[in-house]
Amino acid sequence: MDKKFVCDLFDVKGKVAIITGATGALGSAVSFGYGLAGMKIMVTGRNEEKLKSLCDALKKENIECVYSVGNPAVEEDVKRVVKDTVETFGEVNVLLTAAGYNNPQPIIEQDLEEWQKIMNSDVQATWLFCKYAGAEMIRQGRGGKVILVSSARSKMGMAGYTGYCTAKGGIDLMAQSLACEWSAKYHINVNTINPTVFRSELTEWMFDPDSQVYKDFLKRLPVGRLGEPEDFVGPCIFLASAASDFMTGANVAVEGGYWAN
Amino acid sequence: MDKKFVCDLFDVKGKVAIITGATGALGSAVSFGYGLAGMKIMVTGRNEEKLKSLCDALKKENIECVYSVGNPAVEEDVKRVVKDTVETFGEVNVLLTAAGYNNPQPIIEQDLEEWQKIMNSDVQATWLFCKYAGAEMIRQGRGGKVILVSSARSKMGMAGYTGYCTAKGGIDLMAQSLACEWSAKYHINVNTINPTVFRSELTEWMFDPDSQVYKDFLKRLPVGRLGEPEDFVGPCIFLASAASDFMTGANVAVEGGYWAN
Amino acid sequence: MDKKFVCDLFDVKGKVAIITGATGALGSAVSFGYGLAGMKIMVTGRNEEKLKSLCDALKKENIECVYSVGNPAVEEDVKRVVKDTVETFGEVNVLLTAAGYNNPQPIIEQDLEEWQKIMNSDVQATWLFCKYAGAEMIRQGRGGKVILVSSARSKMGMAGYTGYCTAKGGIDLMAQSLACEWSAKYHINVNTINPTVFRSELTEWMFDPDSQVYKDFLKRLPVGRLGEPEDFVGPCIFLASAASDFMTGANVAVEGGYWAN
Amino acid sequence: MDKKFVCDLFDVKGKVAIITGATGALGSAVSFGYGLAGMKIMVTGRNEEKLKSLCDALKKENIECVYSVGNPAVEEDVKRVVKDTVETFGEVNVLLTAAGYNNPQPIIEQDLEEWQKIMNSDVQATWLFCKYAGAEMIRQGRGGKVILVSSARSKMGMAGYTGYCTAKGGIDLMAQSLACEWSAKYHINVNTINPTVFRSELTEWMFDPDSQVYKDFLKRLPVGRLGEPEDFVGPCIFLASAASDFMTGANVAVEGGYWAN
Repeated sequence: MDKKFVCDLFDVKGKVAIITGATGALGSAVSFGYGLAGMKIMVTGRNEEKLKSLCDALKKENIECVYSVGNPAVEEDVKRVVKDTVETFGEVNVLLTAAGYNNPQPIIEQDLEEWQKIMNSDVQATWLFCKYAGAEMIRQGRGGKVILVSSARSKMGMAGYTGYCTAKGGIDLMAQSLACEWSAKYHINVNTINPTVFRSELTEWMFDPDSQVYKDFLKRLPVGRLGEPEDFVGPCIFLASAASDFMTGANVAVEGGYWAN
Repeated sequence: MDKKFVCDLFDVKGKVAIITGATGALGSAVSFGYGLAGMKIMVTGRNEEKLKSLCDALKKENIECVYSVGNPAVEEDVKRVVKDTVETFGEVNVLLTAAGYNNPQPIIEQDLEEWQKIMNSDVQATWLFCKYAGAEMIRQGRGGKVILVSSARSKMGMAGYTGYCTAKGGIDLMAQSLACEWSAKYHINVNTINPTVFRSELTEWMFDPDSQVYKDFLKRLPVGRLGEPEDFVGPCIFLASAASDFMTGANVAVEGGYWAN
Repeated sequence: MDKKFVCDLFDVKGKVAIITGATGALGSAVSFGYGLAGMKIMVTGRNEEKLKSLCDALKKENIECVYSVGNPAVEEDVKRVVKDTVETFGEVNVLLTAAGYNNPQPIIEQDLEEWQKIMNSDVQATWLFCKYAGAEMIRQGRGGKVILVSSARSKMGMAGYTGYCTAKGGIDLMAQSLACEWSAKYHINVNTINPTVFRSELTEWMFDPDSQVYKDFLKRLPVGRLGEPEDFVGPCIFLASAASDFMTGANVAVEGGYWAN
Repeated sequence: MDKKFVCDLFDVKGKVAIITGATGALGSAVSFGYGLAGMKIMVTGRNEEKLKSLCDALKKENIECVYSVGNPAVEEDVKRVVKDTVETFGEVNVLLTAAGYNNPQPIIEQDLEEWQKIMNSDVQATWLFCKYAGAEMIRQGRGGKVILVSSARSKMGMAGYTGYCTAKGGIDLMAQSLACEWSAKYHINVNTINPTVFRSELTEWMFDPDSQVYKDFLKRLPVGRLGEPEDFVGPCIFLASAASDFMTGANVAVEGGYWAN
């Protein structure tokens, strides 16, 4: 072991990453984090305007970045995003799936179509990107890193969450199965990151320190605060780097200790 | 506490149960087990001939039993099976979902349609029966017991299993979410049973004690043998009885110690 | 499968059980439960007066019962209790360890001696009874059932609990290790039961429905109420019976859904 | 977010770390890793000769390093090591406990004294270092990072391991409890790393690729190879750095996917 080995552990410069759900709070934080760490970024999502604006902001930081519009739950879109990535950057080394959707409802009030929308947005979208980005990584033959954004809710239920918890519980197992399928054979590591509530447009209301919701949540959160998008960046770089080469099939808790309590 | 309390703990006589996937090895064992324990049984599945023949065999044992044909992944079929149950027996007290499907394939070789078939057969079918049988239990207002057959594979991945493991991992969380949603409010307990390989037509080939498959499997199985359908009956009665009234949202390992090793 | 098979599933009549911590709320409930189910009972603990009084109460219910005084963390005492059991009843078929101790303190304020007392009372006591009752079951050659009372706290930490949580986390793994060591070879099944708060002299203060403690706790408990000693009996009989013959190394949640939430 | 933020995420330069079990394969790798990353290192263990030789080797790499001899299971020794650290470097920012011991034996053949030796070496030693290094971190008031080396065996039993698995299962919960106790209040994060078999003098025999032991092990290990000490460095730096500030109470699998399979 020498100094170079240690310095290179977290070095991800030049790697090509696809980031789904890139315009969300977590996806956007990772896009900046990966980009500032020297990675080349394909950002994707359904809203072209937001993607373009994200890409512009990334480029201002001298980040190599392109976008490709698409619905991650639609097979043809996913194929195209992967194809666009390879055409632009010549390869794919990292896949990070941050796209997701929830709509909490009691099961007896939730329409099958709405439940399917949650399952498709969360599980099918993840499966499709794993399939097509994975196929490309296998074709290239130089390994890769796949990071699926799951949730602290993947191991704990919640009223109204027969869609979301089911989907996230499934994603944890998809990662474990792909680890068994890919890691030894193709040197592709597959792990999940399991966040609790992070600040975003959707969750901003939970961050009022005077609210009962906030106070109740903190009782469950050993770290003593909710998540900021910046908290997400370190674990995502770690799992994309050589530092985590011996980790695969892991469900990495980035949840302030929620599972520990 | 008196003798009667203890004797009644496991008494399920007169309860009405819907059993899905009833003609499979586990579903069939539970049908006999529940029936012989005095429960009234609605058996359902897609194959009318097999259902009829199962029903005939159950009736020979003086078990009160009807069948209703249906695809558990199809909403209208599920609604009808629940309706038929109530029309026949006047109520539903227990739901046991033993229907399932698997087709192991590497993700890059599996068509989206095939993956969807696994997810629908395993997750959507379970969700639909929970929704409609649950709605009926809530309407009745006398509580109930829901037992979802998951798998030892719900917490451990496997090559070729991005469908099955994902589905079963999801089912565990569906049970946990429904426990949060229903137990306090409606006195409906929701638990999973997580079996490892049990003897069936599909698995019979794994039971040859001279085969390498069998020997390798046993190294992982502390109990020292694979499962027989009879092993499944006790846990299913337990979870349908008052003996488990304080258990909800649990993933009950009936897997010979597979998770412990 | 016939009616007799189903009726016999939960029949534990005539089995000989050692129950440690027998004068506590859970130990006492199981003593009555096992006794009323027809088992022969050795109750043990440190307080002779309480043991004698428990034994008298059990005998009033026509339960075959003896007691043997001893500290479960002291090797000579444990050896003697097992010996007394065999001398009295001729064998040991079931071991249920309900003895335990806690004294929550911040780690930097807790003396090593106090921490050791927790560890010895909870872990060493369990280990010693497993060793000596297990040796006897192995000698007999007719299998057995070992049920270790762990805690819902075995998988979730708590401030002040570096003794108790550590001990209970350890007990879960002791059960899993013994399952690997004993089940295939000697037909001894080893499982834990993991309870949340049950009513006892020590916990009675938590059961005031108007208190904030109670209200906060219920938010975490899907089943909607705290545990009553009677809730404990069913799972303990189940794990001592043939109904759970395919279960070993399992950590059975009897915690009102605490882990699911 | 700017470039500096991302560059600083994994920067641990100048931090003071205590490393227990420092002369073992993992402890030694972390000592070099931390040292080469710019941390100041207190290495401790029972063997002065080995410690001195490790320290010499570290110094050759221009690493600031001292050693203090002590038995980690002995309270006075632990107090002294922490005191020596503060006297030398002025503070303690990171605690990494890599000391441990195992001696697999069937429970009925293992003497209580031997079992206690395992428990003391693994659990009590960890508890003592948490207590005294934690007290110092709290006194300083600038937070800290505690990393407990647990094991993949902390969640899975093994024949002959009623000491080791019990101890490691306990350590996971100790971390979770300390997270609840310390993280919000004192900004001290406490996590475990859970390794599978890594190459060391003790395990070298398992690394013969032609042996049955090796082949059998690999069937369980999705990553397709056993661990090298270098694999351990990245996760240990990650958990000592700001990149993991939102992680506490986590049991981080660095086990090649062992838990996923």
